[in-house]
Amino acid sequence: MEHTEIGVVHTSITRADPAAVAALSAFGVATVHEAMGRVGLLRPYLRPVYPKARLSGTAVTVLLQPGDNWMLHVAAEQIRPGDVVVAACTTESEDGFFGELLATSFRARGCAGLVIDGGVRDVAELEQLDFPVFARAVNAKGTVKATLGSVNVPVVCANALVRPGDVVLADTDGVVVVPRERAAEVARTAAEREANEAGKRERFRAGELGLDMYGMREELAKLGLRYQD
Amino acid sequence: MEHTEIGVVHTSITRADPAAVAALSAFGVATVHEAMGRVGLLRPYLRPVYPKARLSGTAVTVLLQPGDNWMLHVAAEQIRPGDVVVAACTTESEDGFFGELLATSFRARGCAGLVIDGGVRDVAELEQLDFPVFARAVNAKGTVKATLGSVNVPVVCANALVRPGDVVLADTDGVVVVPRERAAEVARTAAEREANEAGKRERFRAGELGLDMYGMREELAKLGLRYQD
Amino acid sequence: MEHTEIGVVHTSITRADPAAVAALSAFGVATVHEAMGRVGLLRPYLRPVYPKARLSGTAVTVLLQPGDNWMLHVAAEQIRPGDVVVAACTTESEDGFFGELLATSFRARGCAGLVIDGGVRDVAELEQLDFPVFARAVNAKGTVKATLGSVNVPVVCANALVRPGDVVLADTDGVVVVPRERAAEVARTAAEREANEAGKRERFRAGELGLDMYGMREELAKLGLRYQD
Amino acid sequence: MEHTEIGVVHTSITRADPAAVAALSAFGVATVHEAMGRVGLLRPYLRPVYPKARLSGTAVTVLLQPGDNWMLHVAAEQIRPGDVVVAACTTESEDGFFGELLATSFRARGCAGLVIDGGVRDVAELEQLDFPVFARAVNAKGTVKATLGSVNVPVVCANALVRPGDVVLADTDGVVVVPRERAAEVARTAAEREANEAGKRERFRAGELGLDMYGMREELAKLGLRYQD
Amino acid sequence: MEHTEIGVVHTSITRADPAAVAALSAFGVATVHEAMGRVGLLRPYLRPVYPKARLSGTAVTVLLQPGDNWMLHVAAEQIRPGDVVVAACTTESEDGFFGELLATSFRARGCAGLVIDGGVRDVAELEQLDFPVFARAVNAKGTVKATLGSVNVPVVCANALVRPGDVVLADTDGVVVVPRERAAEVARTAAEREANEAGKRERFRAGELGLDMYGMREELAKLGLRYQD
Amino acid sequence: MEHTEIGVVHTSITRADPAAVAALSAFGVATVHEAMGRVGLLRPYLRPVYPKARLSGTAVTVLLQPGDNWMLHVAAEQIRPGDVVVAACTTESEDGFFGELLATSFRARGCAGLVIDGGVRDVAELEQLDFPVFARAVNAKGTVKATLGSVNVPVVCANALVRPGDVVLADTDGVVVVPRERAAEVARTAAEREANEAGKRERFRAGELGLDMYGMREELAKLGLRYQD
Repeated sequence: MEHTEIGVVHTSITRADPAAVAALSAFGVATVHEAMGRVGLLRPYLRPVYPKARLSGTAVTVLLQPGDNWMLHVAAEQIRPGDVVVAACTTESEDGFFGELLATSFRARGCAGLVIDGGVRDVAELEQLDFPVFARAVNAKGTVKATLGSVNVPVVCANALVRPGDVVLADTDGVVVVPRERAAEVARTAAEREANEAGKRERFRAGELGLDMYGMREELAKLGLRYQD
Repeated sequence: MEHTEIGVVHTSITRADPAAVAALSAFGVATVHEAMGRVGLLRPYLRPVYPKARLSGTAVTVLLQPGDNWMLHVAAEQIRPGDVVVAACTTESEDGFFGELLATSFRARGCAGLVIDGGVRDVAELEQLDFPVFARAVNAKGTVKATLGSVNVPVVCANALVRPGDVVLADTDGVVVVPRERAAEVARTAAEREANEAGKRERFRAGELGLDMYGMREELAKLGLRYQD
Repeated sequence: MEHTEIGVVHTSITRADPAAVAALSAFGVATVHEAMGRVGLLRPYLRPVYPKARLSGTAVTVLLQPGDNWMLHVAAEQIRPGDVVVAACTTESEDGFFGELLATSFRARGCAGLVIDGGVRDVAELEQLDFPVFARAVNAKGTVKATLGSVNVPVVCANALVRPGDVVLADTDGVVVVPRERAAEVARTAAEREANEAGKRERFRAGELGLDMYGMREELAKLGLRYQD
Repeated sequence: MEHTEIGVVHTSITRADPAAVAALSAFGVATVHEAMGRVGLLRPYLRPVYPKARLSGTAVTVLLQPGDNWMLHVAAEQIRPGDVVVAACTTESEDGFFGELLATSFRARGCAGLVIDGGVRDVAELEQLDFPVFARAVNAKGTVKATLGSVNVPVVCANALVRPGDVVLADTDGVVVVPRERAAEVARTAAEREANEAGKRERFRAGELGLDMYGMREELAKLGLRYQD
Repeated sequence: MEHTEIGVVHTSITRADPAAVAALSAFGVATVHEAMGRVGLLRPYLRPVYPKARLSGTAVTVLLQPGDNWMLHVAAEQIRPGDVVVAACTTESEDGFFGELLATSFRARGCAGLVIDGGVRDVAELEQLDFPVFARAVNAKGTVKATLGSVNVPVVCANALVRPGDVVLADTDGVVVVPRERAAEVARTAAEREANEAGKRERFRAGELGLDMYGMREELAKLGLRYQD
Repeated sequence: MEHTEIGVVHTSITRADPAAVAALSAFGVATVHEAMGRVGLLRPYLRPVYPKARLSGTAVTVLLQPGDNWMLHVAAEQIRPGDVVVAACTTESEDGFFGELLATSFRARGCAGLVIDGGVRDVAELEQLDFPVFARAVNAKGTVKATLGSVNVPVVCANALVRPGDVVLADTDGVVVVPRERAAEVARTAAEREANEAGKRERFRAGELGLDMYGMREELAKLGLRYQD
């Protein structure tokens, strides 16, 4: 893995297999996170900026400087249809790095959405465009274009490592990243998990208790759980 | 009162009188809180996980361990129709303790909703089920089933004491708990308060000032309020 | 400028020119903030209490004491049609200073909305009334009427100076204040900015990159940005 | 248990047995919390206002209103030598409720210190007086004396239930409350725990691993932990 | 008052009378805040970066851009002996704007300390230099020099308006600003207050209760406070 | 790079060259961060748990589960003299994962300190042992030993990627990680930077301005900075 470095744009990245991305996009974030073995979640302070926002795609990564969105313009050129831009920042910054004009530009490149560990603005317009954004803040404060960051280096975004080409999914429950090499395997596991859950759902609906379905009573008793009138 | 203890499930609890619960459920949280003498509110960081969520019922209490939702399965068996599960945690934890499967199970038991000082996931599915949840976070992170907590002990949830059988109400303004012994009395006071407010509303609508309606001018002058051109 | 003082109500204030207020109200908060030279934003923790809330008008300012909404009643008398009440607090307080009854009173005076560095309640009713409120919290906790503050003194609200009569605008992106003397000038600049953005929007939509539109490539190269296969 | 009520001062309270309090005061907060079965901790946002602060004693409880310290004056009269004042607030408030003058008054009554879910000021003077205080904030902002709260009712302070007469201990690790009925038993368990830890400390110092001391290797292997070169 | 504007350095400012500054510097922040009528405090998140830090002087104000400390270098030239630099930021930023080299430069100009609504670094060195700093964070992250702000314009710092030449005091209890025109008057009131407190301190030490000293019993009874055995 | 995986202990890791670690340990965190090109800082919420704490060494990494410190016992066996344990958690958890007994065990293995994105307890004892710890919280709450994590996998700790064997440095300004391959190079750059700063320090001390030393005046003028009487 290359180290995180300032001042570089990688123009050739290996994207996850499109079939695997398509397969993964059928699942919710909670399911994918479970299918990965409970890793890969970004911190839950990233929230959709409008209620119906949901996205999936391959990561074009950006390393921003605080209060400076220059690298988002540089990143635009690297976007291919189906990419999701994942923007980290060298420090905590809630300025409005992104708004309607950049969304229009990204959309023209086929961009599937934005995940940003920072703020965005023009959220009413983003909702009208239905351009999905997951951000840590909404903030009308604009940014400058003065300092170099990087594009398509590995970044840590909201406490998760995201490499260019990894698969990113986001829905109301949060944001998860799947390393591109694991995409197909995780999609298979997610499918199995969903099939398994469908059966459980029916049994729960019929009134069966988790205590019985999962056979928990013995273990609970062994640990000393007491029932008292 | 029993002390908070780990490893106990109380199976016989005294629930507030159903008529009083029904009476209380007609009022908003702000009104009930006023009718109680301005006590009983849970901290306002508990928020509905979907916009229309609203609930009322009698508390089945749960004491969770961080990152562990085992006791929610234990609690399911103690739920009777009209109960609200109130889940506290021994420490601050925003993991996703609860999701669609448990909601299906709770719903099958007649559960009226969940108040949890922790995180939940599957919020799109919870909204579809219209299973009302008030939580401190949305988080796709799953939990384990490894450590004992308790069910139906008194708990402190979001800085308020909740005992099994107490009445819990929640709406867009927050969550309030009414001790079961006070339920009928508080419902009566709330009704009086609403009647009283209806009259005031009309006078405000007609343009009367609170300064005059409440006779505040003299007291303000006595304290030294100066009007200046 | 008068100093911030406790215990005073200024009854004669100079409001921004109504034509300038009307002109400004056509623009979003992000645009106005840019047109002012990137100053004047209130901190982004102020959020609309219901999704469609949006407001504009001239400020009637209030300085509150923590947990005490007395001065909002005093302020009601000073409201003229088109005013927005801007309430700061001498300390950080998230109590529910404002609800449906005060909204009814303010509405009867022609009030255009409320910006408050504190909490509010009755948010379902506020949405039904379509009385726009931007607040730092939703909180059912009521307040007392015991301690003097001030009305129509300069206040610092969410880290911005607001003087009586200044123009206040708020939408999904946040809240901005325009000094009354600058209202007309800022409206003109905002209009120019929007005209300018319309052209850019078309070019972005057609696929032109910001890198080219803004001529950034040379400056980036000069600073040492490297493209790497 | 009496309910939390506003406007009451209980003048006769049952304090924990002095011998048990003395016994407990020999142990650290972490040890006592373990000895209680891992309950009883107040939220860790309560911190000592000077580095060496440490306290133990029996609780005189206070329920404050936001920005109002009147009830601390009322409480002073209820203090007996060895008492610790535990002050909760009906809402979150970080104002400076307490300073050097009240500390002088409390000290004159034999008070052993203060735990407050709010702010305090004069911290340099408190350190000079060596009057231990655990608070959520330091804040020069003064308070008023206008609204009733209560003294010696059960309160929820920093998310823990504290009843008058309960034992309170605080040191650099935090604050813990022991119900008065459990004081002697918890002191015994804490002593056993410390004796037990002394032996372990020696073995750890000699280089023995917890893996071996606690016999963890088998359980870890059973759960599937893999060692890899 | 001039408006907050970007890109300006005011070289002639009116400083508070040195005698008044000297008089004020004898008092603590809590006392001065009371003497001002309970206004003028900066938000309590500003904390000393080392325990003994304390400062007083006349403000040279700075408006910073996020992650950019250029204006601190511009400000250095405007410092006269006895000045305190007060640095606000156009947005919330906790980067390390200031460290040992700038402290050395400021010290050479006779600077009495720094109050900054941002982060600083080199705190061990700052303590060795005994250069007092009150900041919102400690952060090793450096800043750039790329974007204009302003020097000696009125700024809002940690929610308080500070104008060039105003008096600023900071100690363990926080930071307060006194408008330069009020400096002498506030110093007098502070002296009276301290004299008054000295008498009270003696009475408290002798065991007199605030209930009696302030004559509170009647008012408490009138409001309905009940004493109960 | 191996992916983050649950349930694995890597027993053979490549540690940074000891000479490079020794060289780096002579520098402060702010200097090293600059020498790396302004990357590698952990989030500033990690703070020393006692004032003089400072550490440097090679990372043994741990991935914890919330409220569960089992993997710290597993990690102890992997510690070699000079190692620093760097503990991340799969979710945000401020429980007390670490205390005096584990410190004694780690010390016996030659451990140079702990960096943990979680809470610790026994801080008075840690200070007595002079065992340096950088943590996000102090919390007396104990943890369980029930769920697998990993040891010596790459982890993201406080938003920075740390791989086993990387160099970690921490002082009052924060925590920085240097990839093991870059250790020698970064030490050289840091030394150059310090030499360079020594000269600047003297010039600042003599009263020279940064405006002149760095030749900033022309650029400021070009951007339009106006000086005004």
